[in-house]
Amino acid sequence: MLTLEADVLAKNNALAERNRGWFAGRRTLALNLVSSPGSGKTTLLERTIREIGSELSISVLGGDQETQNDAARIAATGCKVVQINTGTGCHLDAEMVNRGLRALDPPVDSLLMIENVGNLVCPALFDLGERAKVAMLSVTEGEDKPAKYPHMFRAARLMLLTKIDLLPHLDFDVERCIGQALQVNPRIEVLQLSAKSGVGMDRWYDWVRKEWAAQRQDSMV
Amino acid sequence: MLTLEADVLAKNNALAERNRGWFAGRRTLALNLVSSPGSGKTTLLERTIREIGSELSISVLGGDQETQNDAARIAATGCKVVQINTGTGCHLDAEMVNRGLRALDPPVDSLLMIENVGNLVCPALFDLGERAKVAMLSVTEGEDKPAKYPHMFRAARLMLLTKIDLLPHLDFDVERCIGQALQVNPRIEVLQLSAKSGVGMDRWYDWVRKEWAAQRQDSMV
Repeated sequence: MLTLEADVLAKNNALAERNRGWFAGRRTLALNLVSSPGSGKTTLLERTIREIGSELSISVLGGDQETQNDAARIAATGCKVVQINTGTGCHLDAEMVNRGLRALDPPVDSLLMIENVGNLVCPALFDLGERAKVAMLSVTEGEDKPAKYPHMFRAARLMLLTKIDLLPHLDFDVERCIGQALQVNPRIEVLQLSAKSGVGMDRWYDWVRKEWAAQRQDSMV
Repeated sequence: MLTLEADVLAKNNALAERNRGWFAGRRTLALNLVSSPGSGKTTLLERTIREIGSELSISVLGGDQETQNDAARIAATGCKVVQINTGTGCHLDAEMVNRGLRALDPPVDSLLMIENVGNLVCPALFDLGERAKVAMLSVTEGEDKPAKYPHMFRAARLMLLTKIDLLPHLDFDVERCIGQALQVNPRIEVLQLSAKSGVGMDRWYDWVRKEWAAQRQDSMV
């Protein structure tokens, strides 16, 4: 089983490099949004598209076991979106993203948001060719999640603490949560926001703009 | 890959039958709690143990990628608990439960609560020998989850809608959520509760008592 897993990951990693080259060639920033089900990935995307979608030319590649629910919500914002249904599958892999890109055909100088299957475990292992994984954690999930699911928070460059408008109704220790994230990944960046109230969204946009500019630099090579 | 997956599941299913026989022999009801991370499995167990733990002689087998956090919380209630760390693994399988049972050694006429890894995807595929899977969904996760993760809600006999004390602060349509669950699994039972406020816990206990009695009947065969 371990050998086979290594083979599967090696094949995935090669295809991920191909995707990475394609993103560089097209000067497209690809971010891989990962989280538990219901942490607010689609809601974050809806607001982000509304507020900076035309500035950064956003398109979306979404993964879900079943339904086109999220794609319909994204399409309603006017954004280009392709949805991949994974069936019993628990994550997106580089090959699915490769196929999705052919259908989506994102423009040059754009931002591709990959909305992974809601799963805080398996997507940590799969490189899709993205520039960074963004791990979202809603404050309703409890502050111990980075310690309990360390692989995801080690794989991520940014942690977004979401739904902070609900903090007054919860026993959630923000500082303790950030401390646990830094313990498993001392280099992780952390932002707090609510895509419902809008608080904290500006700093998220600044982070995205910074990565977008960096991707364009890297594309020169 | 598909052949291998079938082999893995066939081996798992055989061991699951062995576990099921052991549970019958020991007149022990085994329930497999499955949900996203942070849906409140441990909080539900803490209150359940406090309120009916001695009546039904509860012990707990817990799975997590890392940490003994949940085991420490359960142990603080005075309950027998064994924690299995799965590393990069995304679910408990029948063999892990088998090993866990040797360490836990639950008594005759008891209730074993298996707290699975927080993951709404992969644990759906793995029979552990339990009498029933109980899928928990917190109302902060959004009402479309049964449609988007249908395999889990098809595999479950009971859906617990948790954290309903937060409903006044959310846009969550309870009826729509239950409708989606019934669409993927017309036979699923649904209970609503909050392990924090205590509302709805009585009906959960009645469900558990009914299954406990039924397991004792089946153990006569």
